Amino acid sequence: MRILGIDPGSNATGYGIVERQPGGIVHVAHGTIRTPSGQSLELRLASLHCELNAAVREYAPERAVVERVFVALNVHSALVLGQARGAILAAIGAAGVPVDELSPGEIKKAVTGSGAAAKVQVQDMVMRLLSLSEPPPQDAADALAAALCRAQMGPLADLDILARSRRGRARSRRRLDPRTSP
Amino acid sequence: MRILGIDPGSNATGYGIVERQPGGIVHVAHGTIRTPSGQSLELRLASLHCELNAAVREYAPERAVVERVFVALNVHSALVLGQARGAILAAIGAAGVPVDELSPGEIKKAVTGSGAAAKVQVQDMVMRLLSLSEPPPQDAADALAAALCRAQMGPLADLDILARSRRGRARSRRRLDPRTSP
Repeated sequence: MRILGIDPGSNATGYGIVERQPGGIVHVAHGTIRTPSGQSLELRLASLHCELNAAVREYAPERAVVERVFVALNVHSALVLGQARGAILAAIGAAGVPVDELSPGEIKKAVTGSGAAAKVQVQDMVMRLLSLSEPPPQDAADALAAALCRAQMGPLADLDILARSRRGRARSRRRLDPRTSP
Repeated sequence: MRILGIDPGSNATGYGIVERQPGGIVHVAHGTIRTPSGQSLELRLASLHCELNAAVREYAPERAVVERVFVALNVHSALVLGQARGAILAAIGAAGVPVDELSPGEIKKAVTGSGAAAKVQVQDMVMRLLSLSEPPPQDAADALAAALCRAQMGPLADLDILARSRRGRARSRRRLDPRTSP
């Protein structure tokens, strides 16, 4: 199973693709999408949407994952980050790829063993876990870390997410009733 | 000149198109895009992006306008609204249509004469100004009001916006120097 991790940002958005194989998790690709800060907002968002679209077509992931937003943002940052996430999620949704949200703590813990790890520790562990020759740039490392965290969640999480995206709100009821759970 | 006004929202996004003609401003179309709340976020944003895209292709506006975001929002609302704006602006930017932001007060004042007008006054004035047989639904009325406000700004504003979208940050410097102003 291929997983696309994304670290959204208004100036730089990192992405990383890993594949879960029977023998382990392997690296497929990673990169950073930069939008020129001199351009108007609508052109930057259109370019972000278009490049994500191209990455989804090229690597054909079956799942995507983004960091859940940390609520301690201020209102302006939340709006700016929201706009980048909107352009990104619209591109992934259009390709029919279900998106999961994981907290920054969950991702760091899965990759480094500590939910409070520093950025550089995440970069270093991503490099080691995926046998890369050098640490990926920070945005791409965060995206690969999210993809790695999702990849190690195993087949049960896949079923859960599939059920959630297909059945919407019916899910929470069904989970309480073992007779109807998937 | 055709102008597309948009009132972005995560559940319902209003849009309205007006055309500035030599004799005045006329109504072209309006509507509301609803995204089913039971669907996942990425599917809702993809559908919003896709429907805006279709409206831009159908009506071929030369300008678009959205309300500037009111900073008194809370962080969660700013993120949710930002995501809708991101999907919308990416669609408009991809069509090469420049987007202007106007404050809610400017829009209300242009349409009703008061920056603090109630929603129902805006609906009523939009209906009268565009000679509609009934008041448009609230989201569409707000979108038409934004388009009307932008339409009455006249040809000088068009130049300004053109200059801004082409020259980016150079604009503020140039405006201070009459020798180089467009």
